[in-house]
Amino acid sequence: MHAVALGGGHGLHATLSALRRITPDVTAVVTVADDGGSSGRLRRELGLLPPGDLRQALAALAAAEDGGTLWADVFQHRFGGSGALTGHAVGNLLLAGLFEVLGDPVAGLDEARRLLGISGRVLPMSAEPLEIEAEVTGLENGEVSRIRGQVAVASTPGRVRRITLHNPGRPGRPPVACREAVDAVLSADVVLLGPGSWFTSVLPHLLVPDLHDALVRTPATRVVVLNLVPQPGETAGFSPERHLDVLFEHAPRLRVDAVIADRDSVPTPARLRRAAAALGGRAHLARVAAPGETGRHDPDALADCVREALGIPASGREGQ
Amino acid sequence: MHAVALGGGHGLHATLSALRRITPDVTAVVTVADDGGSSGRLRRELGLLPPGDLRQALAALAAAEDGGTLWADVFQHRFGGSGALTGHAVGNLLLAGLFEVLGDPVAGLDEARRLLGISGRVLPMSAEPLEIEAEVTGLENGEVSRIRGQVAVASTPGRVRRITLHNPGRPGRPPVACREAVDAVLSADVVLLGPGSWFTSVLPHLLVPDLHDALVRTPATRVVVLNLVPQPGETAGFSPERHLDVLFEHAPRLRVDAVIADRDSVPTPARLRRAAAALGGRAHLARVAAPGETGRHDPDALADCVREALGIPASGREGQ
Repeated sequence: MHAVALGGGHGLHATLSALRRITPDVTAVVTVADDGGSSGRLRRELGLLPPGDLRQALAALAAAEDGGTLWADVFQHRFGGSGALTGHAVGNLLLAGLFEVLGDPVAGLDEARRLLGISGRVLPMSAEPLEIEAEVTGLENGEVSRIRGQVAVASTPGRVRRITLHNPGRPGRPPVACREAVDAVLSADVVLLGPGSWFTSVLPHLLVPDLHDALVRTPATRVVVLNLVPQPGETAGFSPERHLDVLFEHAPRLRVDAVIADRDSVPTPARLRRAAAALGGRAHLARVAAPGETGRHDPDALADCVREALGIPASGREGQ
Repeated sequence: MHAVALGGGHGLHATLSALRRITPDVTAVVTVADDGGSSGRLRRELGLLPPGDLRQALAALAAAEDGGTLWADVFQHRFGGSGALTGHAVGNLLLAGLFEVLGDPVAGLDEARRLLGISGRVLPMSAEPLEIEAEVTGLENGEVSRIRGQVAVASTPGRVRRITLHNPGRPGRPPVACREAVDAVLSADVVLLGPGSWFTSVLPHLLVPDLHDALVRTPATRVVVLNLVPQPGETAGFSPERHLDVLFEHAPRLRVDAVIADRDSVPTPARLRRAAAALGGRAHLARVAAPGETGRHDPDALADCVREALGIPASGREGQ
């Protein structure tokens, strides 16, 4: 079974860990609009894809492999101190070097996964660094403001209404999807979207035209995984249903087969069921939160719920 | 046959390339007193061994292996631009990460050599970053000045008389040799010292007490390889014999079996023969300069001359 997870950051880590419990054939499709932290510094300084979310996805898949985790540890290690390297993850620097030497992020990521001994694959949603722009209300009385950049959007005190995605390297042209990511979605048996920062890690995938089309056209089972808690800033006060509404507003043609939500995070299950049905799918409510870790999914519980959504018996675990 | 080459920088690159033509079992023992460039920045910022000379030795050995050179290319790749990463070699950053994660430079270098598919080994002369101090004349009329740091010593307009080696992390204590480097020297069949920046890459090895003792005691054939041209700065105006005199002044107990020099770089062969004999050895003069590359040794010619010094027929090539 070929499973594809689209997202970024910690949310993608959770779905990759869960999917890896179901099948060894997992592809991550990762946002490339980050402009903060170590990734943002590398992006600005070298003009490369921000590597942080890609690195996190590699680390999530590496953690699922037996044996040597040294290179995964090195990838995730951050330099300390207070100098020019402070905060840079070694894996970010190594990915940057691979991208520059090979001239192709997909080839670089494939080398990195060989180094880490990963059976799955990590792909960028686009081979070019992209930029998020958001329409936000609540900043200037009643006006719609436009703010740019993932960090600014993720932390706005305003209310995000809608995002668009830009290619700063080719202004006015739509973002170009990574061909291998499009192929992965089209050949998948199951596609997971979310959880994660809704406007900055999840929805951007729907705003790359060819990737959007692939998600609409794929014969795969389409599963949306909702967040456990609203994100302070970009989705403060959002109900689970509101997350689906926003998804629909950004991708009206997208149908969804299943919506996975944490039972304890859904105040009004009937509303969520209606919202899922409006997208063509069924809501699966289960206990998928990691006990004691606020906002994190439990990979085993999430894997069980994905199996349920796919109609796979919980005992029929593949690739463990 | 186990061959050990001690040095740093381009000189060590030349001897490693030459030895690798004779045997696959080559160990590099590398200076750790660099304080310039990417290495110096990493050393100051993170308190680690300066990785540049270690990286160059890994690259020299990797170049001798068949097949994939991608990781060697990535190791040697330097970031451009004008930001915080400018000039850092990716391999230096990766070695720094390995050193921090593993807490042991020898373990880190062994992982790096596995990554690069190297059959030989690269070791630091000491697991702690060291500092060179030089007694220099000619800076203040007749006075002896003391200057500190590899860059300052290598580029002094004065005349270097003598160097000492310090452990800035443990002031007043002598430098501690890397145990594996001492073992390599003691178990070697042949040990090469030089070529390279005489005061800053070659002599420092003799100033680490346990490494000095190992060089004196080893049953290996001891070969000194002289530079093709005097180094501007530290050895400006030095004759080939003067290089050997300086060696003797820093290590009076060291006997040498062979001294290799380029025939066209020795103005008075008889003097060099006498100087070699005074150290207990024989001078081997041959054409070992790379044609058209000023100051570089030709690895094939150098390998032939090492074979001659060892009494191995030129046809008896091992490990090619």
